[in-house]
Amino acid sequence: MANDAPSSKAPTPPAGFLDADQHQLAQGLFDRFREMSFDGVGISRETYGPGETAAMEVIERIGAEHGFETGWDAARNLVLRLPGREPDRPVVATGSHLDSVPQGGNYDGAAGVVASLLALLAAKAHGTPLRTMELHVLRGEESAWYGGPCYFGSRALFGQLTDADLATTHRFTGKPLAHYMAACGADMAPIEQGQGLVDPDRFHSWMELHIEQGPVLIARERPVGLVTGIRGNVRHRRVVCRGEAAHSGAVPRWMRHDAVLAMAELLMRIDEHWRVLLEWGEDLVVTSGIVETNAAEHAVSRVPGEVTFALEYRSQDPKTLTSFGALVRSECETIAAKRGVTFDLGDGVYTAPARMNERLVGLLQSSAEEAGIAGEVMASGAGHDSAVFANAGVPSVMVFVRNEKGSHNPHEAMDYPDFAAGAEVMARALWQAANMAEELR
Amino acid sequence: MANDAPSSKAPTPPAGFLDADQHQLAQGLFDRFREMSFDGVGISRETYGPGETAAMEVIERIGAEHGFETGWDAARNLVLRLPGREPDRPVVATGSHLDSVPQGGNYDGAAGVVASLLALLAAKAHGTPLRTMELHVLRGEESAWYGGPCYFGSRALFGQLTDADLATTHRFTGKPLAHYMAACGADMAPIEQGQGLVDPDRFHSWMELHIEQGPVLIARERPVGLVTGIRGNVRHRRVVCRGEAAHSGAVPRWMRHDAVLAMAELLMRIDEHWRVLLEWGEDLVVTSGIVETNAAEHAVSRVPGEVTFALEYRSQDPKTLTSFGALVRSECETIAAKRGVTFDLGDGVYTAPARMNERLVGLLQSSAEEAGIAGEVMASGAGHDSAVFANAGVPSVMVFVRNEKGSHNPHEAMDYPDFAAGAEVMARALWQAANMAEELR
Repeated sequence: MANDAPSSKAPTPPAGFLDADQHQLAQGLFDRFREMSFDGVGISRETYGPGETAAMEVIERIGAEHGFETGWDAARNLVLRLPGREPDRPVVATGSHLDSVPQGGNYDGAAGVVASLLALLAAKAHGTPLRTMELHVLRGEESAWYGGPCYFGSRALFGQLTDADLATTHRFTGKPLAHYMAACGADMAPIEQGQGLVDPDRFHSWMELHIEQGPVLIARERPVGLVTGIRGNVRHRRVVCRGEAAHSGAVPRWMRHDAVLAMAELLMRIDEHWRVLLEWGEDLVVTSGIVETNAAEHAVSRVPGEVTFALEYRSQDPKTLTSFGALVRSECETIAAKRGVTFDLGDGVYTAPARMNERLVGLLQSSAEEAGIAGEVMASGAGHDSAVFANAGVPSVMVFVRNEKGSHNPHEAMDYPDFAAGAEVMARALWQAANMAEELR
Repeated sequence: MANDAPSSKAPTPPAGFLDADQHQLAQGLFDRFREMSFDGVGISRETYGPGETAAMEVIERIGAEHGFETGWDAARNLVLRLPGREPDRPVVATGSHLDSVPQGGNYDGAAGVVASLLALLAAKAHGTPLRTMELHVLRGEESAWYGGPCYFGSRALFGQLTDADLATTHRFTGKPLAHYMAACGADMAPIEQGQGLVDPDRFHSWMELHIEQGPVLIARERPVGLVTGIRGNVRHRRVVCRGEAAHSGAVPRWMRHDAVLAMAELLMRIDEHWRVLLEWGEDLVVTSGIVETNAAEHAVSRVPGEVTFALEYRSQDPKTLTSFGALVRSECETIAAKRGVTFDLGDGVYTAPARMNERLVGLLQSSAEEAGIAGEVMASGAGHDSAVFANAGVPSVMVFVRNEKGSHNPHEAMDYPDFAAGAEVMARALWQAANMAEELR
């Protein structure tokens, strides 16, 4: 059997797995969330804050009305459950988050929660699945409120919150995360002890729908993305190139050690390697987002003696990150020797990539084909809770929905028909997974 | 007759044109200037200020003691005169400045004035020259005190001070230059009317000795430089490259408009053209001394949407400046089209180069050869009063003296034997010029 074909013997759902009532419910939910969370500029649903809780309670109420089991885990994540015919089997889970950045958009996170709800509703309407299905509404996915760390809800689920995480302070109030978790009703003892709230083996699979935060689907003119991996990254926040400052008129080229030209040469070599590696089939993005000469000593008529710059590279493949890092260091050495400068890369901060499960990607592809929806196979450049699930060992996959103007701003623009297409693909794939006899590990 | 041979029929001065008494005087003068002008860190002789005046009065007194005519022009520049046998002929002039930057060194300017004084003393000791010889101690050569414009004394001489120059304010007190000129006793009426204080045709030639402000003579292991030209320059203080900011993880390479990579490519292409043009025999230096992404919007994980940078290029040849400017603009267009960015170069500020007189360069070369002194033929990257003389039409030349650690700082380090070599070369050449029958125009 090919990798990209579903292995389930469950019946193929009919075209239009989601029905009109479900779509009406979804549209109503988006409207309601927008009303509840409008902050005068955009949407604010604070991490472990009242706006997030209120939106979660809306989902809880709807779940209860539709006959799902509902509950809250120790980290105050919400769980809706549709019991399967064989409840001892690992469960098929789906979900996303309901917090937003300050003055953000309505769909980053919420689209996934609503799609997961629709998938459970549709599953219920199609009969009782083999496996139990669960919707997890995860807390605190955004890094904006606590200025750095994030994925609090999913990391608490797998016992990964550190003392440093719990002590990290709120951007506006200065109080620690632990304070706000407890205020939301979290049971802090197991979390503080790093106990997982669930065994990863309890999950058969995890699926998450999310709006795309880049422009690829717009450019490709496709409504839905099928995500093969979530890029990890290496970040050098402050690379220092040191040469030698000198009079710009009086020092000839052969005596110069120009830090800016050395940096420019490094960036150009990196850019060229990047181009070639893409053609070689590697997944890679490279960015130098901050560049600054030293304001205390730079001048128009002075050969620059120092320049600092940021360097970040991302890939779905940890080997690519390692190899590219070695290549960057090698180029630094070559240029340093050639131009008589030094490069100090400092310690790069590493965030591991997360590979999506190939069988689940195949399930999404066949679901999209059956529904006649054009899906773009692509990587996620931004991080997501799904990376936490995948790196905890849960076979995971993501569906992206076309979205204009990025995310984390009030102008994010997802059209409902695109959401409907993404939700349809995921609901079909979840139904297949929930009726799949074998495990994916 | 070859261009680089002296055309004078004056007797060749004997080896050691300068004598021990003159060298003793020079060393005593440097010591005295240092004592008079030490500011606790370095040397401060303020442009049109008391320290400059005091040092000039020392020169005036020595001139008078040695029987020179002395006087002050309307801009309060000091003039020492050794009348020639034919006083109606255009005169041979030499000199430099006595002001310094704040916390500067003792030799930038003063070395030239002392060398010129020695040349007049030596000439007087060798008999009465054909042409009158003059030492001009010029005011206000440095730009540091008034934050931009400079060469006030020499430009006043040729009627070039503008209303803007006269209104330019003192860096520390905020009072205008005109105030301080008047306070030093300058006659402001002709200066304000832009009247030249002297007809350029009155000068047969102009020679100036100056410490080198770069490291070329140190590297070449030669004590003396023979200057063929003073580089002009084009300065773009703030070039803006605009691309498009984007999420560094979510936007693939083919959709990016990265301003920093576009700038890096431009600088690398410029660097490569520079290398080739040097091999082609052009005189050129290129510097991008300031580089900054926009702090209001840059981030490690953001594709940079904007970067600003300075661009300065210098050459002895105005054609090179013009052609290189066209090349830079062409490269900007190419890269802009390729990368989907824009470059806004703004208006470049142009300062004209000054060619030194080839006959006078030849005179310096033969003088150095006769004295057994190794001279390096080179360009001046920094600006000097000699550029004002040359661009006013006066046949001009400069002698550089080896100097470690640059200028405009307390650590400038000229060894006396190097000064002695430079002063010997210039004194011989001035003597030849003062006895030259023909004009150089």
